[in-house]
Amino acid sequence: MLYGHGDDTYRYDRIEVNFSSNVRYDLNLTGLKRHLAHALDRVGDYPEPDAGSLATALEERYGSSQGTVCVTNGATEAFYLTAAAFRGAVSLIPVPSFSEYYDACRLNGHTLRLTDREPQLLTESDLAGVGLVWLCSPNNPDGRVFPFESLLRLLLAHPRTVFVLDQCYEDFTRERVLTAREAERLGNVALVRSMTKQYGLAGLRLGCLAAAPSLCRKIAAGRMPWSVNRLALEAGRYVLSHPEEFASGPEALLENARLLREGLAAVDGITVRPSDCHFQLAVLREGTAAGLKEYLAEEHGLLIRDASNFRGLDRRHFRIAARSQKENERLIQAIRQWTRHSIR
Amino acid sequence: MLYGHGDDTYRYDRIEVNFSSNVRYDLNLTGLKRHLAHALDRVGDYPEPDAGSLATALEERYGSSQGTVCVTNGATEAFYLTAAAFRGAVSLIPVPSFSEYYDACRLNGHTLRLTDREPQLLTESDLAGVGLVWLCSPNNPDGRVFPFESLLRLLLAHPRTVFVLDQCYEDFTRERVLTAREAERLGNVALVRSMTKQYGLAGLRLGCLAAAPSLCRKIAAGRMPWSVNRLALEAGRYVLSHPEEFASGPEALLENARLLREGLAAVDGITVRPSDCHFQLAVLREGTAAGLKEYLAEEHGLLIRDASNFRGLDRRHFRIAARSQKENERLIQAIRQWTRHSIR
Repeated sequence: MLYGHGDDTYRYDRIEVNFSSNVRYDLNLTGLKRHLAHALDRVGDYPEPDAGSLATALEERYGSSQGTVCVTNGATEAFYLTAAAFRGAVSLIPVPSFSEYYDACRLNGHTLRLTDREPQLLTESDLAGVGLVWLCSPNNPDGRVFPFESLLRLLLAHPRTVFVLDQCYEDFTRERVLTAREAERLGNVALVRSMTKQYGLAGLRLGCLAAAPSLCRKIAAGRMPWSVNRLALEAGRYVLSHPEEFASGPEALLENARLLREGLAAVDGITVRPSDCHFQLAVLREGTAAGLKEYLAEEHGLLIRDASNFRGLDRRHFRIAARSQKENERLIQAIRQWTRHSIR
Repeated sequence: MLYGHGDDTYRYDRIEVNFSSNVRYDLNLTGLKRHLAHALDRVGDYPEPDAGSLATALEERYGSSQGTVCVTNGATEAFYLTAAAFRGAVSLIPVPSFSEYYDACRLNGHTLRLTDREPQLLTESDLAGVGLVWLCSPNNPDGRVFPFESLLRLLLAHPRTVFVLDQCYEDFTRERVLTAREAERLGNVALVRSMTKQYGLAGLRLGCLAAAPSLCRKIAAGRMPWSVNRLALEAGRYVLSHPEEFASGPEALLENARLLREGLAAVDGITVRPSDCHFQLAVLREGTAAGLKEYLAEEHGLLIRDASNFRGLDRRHFRIAARSQKENERLIQAIRQWTRHSIR
């Protein structure tokens, strides 16, 4: 387990604004929270062991077949189950990306190949002998989306390779991403989705995996019962049955992100990477992300993600997720202050 | 994953009283529930990845050393992590007992030996070549506690065998059980505890494992981050910091259980097994537990545990956990009605 993930609010006393976590912050969760408060009355009862009813509801929502969805304890459980189902495989992981692919593979005896080649530039020789490829789109930490046509070409060209496709941030982009039905039809894709990031429920832990029935069955076979808690299941049910409350798209957030990138890019000593979603990587010309993070937390109550522990990045990198324009402006000002004092 | 665990209230429309789940029903959870309702405000933040602060708080409570407690997603995760840490081991499981030991071992390539010998009668030859022994005390499904002196003798006689000791129901008995400090000192015991059964929180999923540091480290190495959700962690913290609210012992419940056993034993066609805690096994002379279960659920809104899928039991066995005297009396009457109609 990597120590140094984002969203480590628990380490600080007075974080006021959290830019370190890529969860959505701009939805009205009043009805959902009220429902969960009521659900606390039944929290003495066990959850459904395999979360089967929610899986069925998701299959209906996705328009995919029976036995193609497996509900998990956050997306993370989907990664660990998949790695376990292919114990000892050769796994290819483009970096930088989410560290848990690496850890899940290592725990399950995979032979690991890391590549810093962009996924759309992977070649035949990169994939030779590879059993699993781990892709993240939009990619954590840089927010880039795998161009859809290139993605399809790659998936179709290697029907005997399994592609774990992490689309946990798909609701935060306007770019075209893969659907559960497409994953089912392709047969060689384990599509992983988060059900919490979009709805501000990361603390409850709810994700799912969509794949063709045989692949889904193979991965789900390693599950323990009750891994998804009762409140997470209630949240999933509520979200599916109240679509009108969660209909707003990411447009406003993406516009905030664009302004945040512009504002930061204007700060001397900061370079901002392009992104297709609401979070992005930035690079310091001098100083360290760890130093900046401590300064922002202690002096301004703002939390960012020190991205130096992503493989392929270094101590100058940090990740930020856009929030309201006012909050973003506060972050830009605070970073500007830091660069003035620490960079000369 | 076994389909057919207890507490399957989600399968029925109108269960009024649940005797199928071994969770405590008689505590005042008002303060705890209020705390959790407040905690919903922070459910958008991730939980602490390794639940380390709660582990430290438990070590303090238990008076055990640092690095001896690992907090898990229910006790079930502790079983799966332990089986994974000893992949390919030879595991000995006395039956009948909790089915998840078997499933966790099978998933992790263990060679399985089942025995119907009572744990205290295990011999040298039973343990020859065995790496792990899975013990449950009080035992699910029969509620028997492993006599303490015999248990200690067994643990001390086999220092190179690892004993997984499931004490999830330790708060429901007056018999002497092993402490976390004793597990730490013995070195060969992975002591598994539930933090939800006692507090009526089974739906939240919170358990822990206590062992000597090297054993604890080995087992915890397989964990994924964030496996314990934020509300479960909040519940754990609340329970530890408000001991006065949960101070009442199991005495009243055990007295109810004694009366329930007496009452049931007086029903023609029912035999009740002895138990050291609040739940117990009963056996039908005629008919099946499945038939009785459906009758009680459909006609009376009462849920019992059909115990026929425990290895070593058959279709005549069912398990019930005592509740209030009034509720227990209602169960006895309903079972009596069933035996009158179905047994002739």
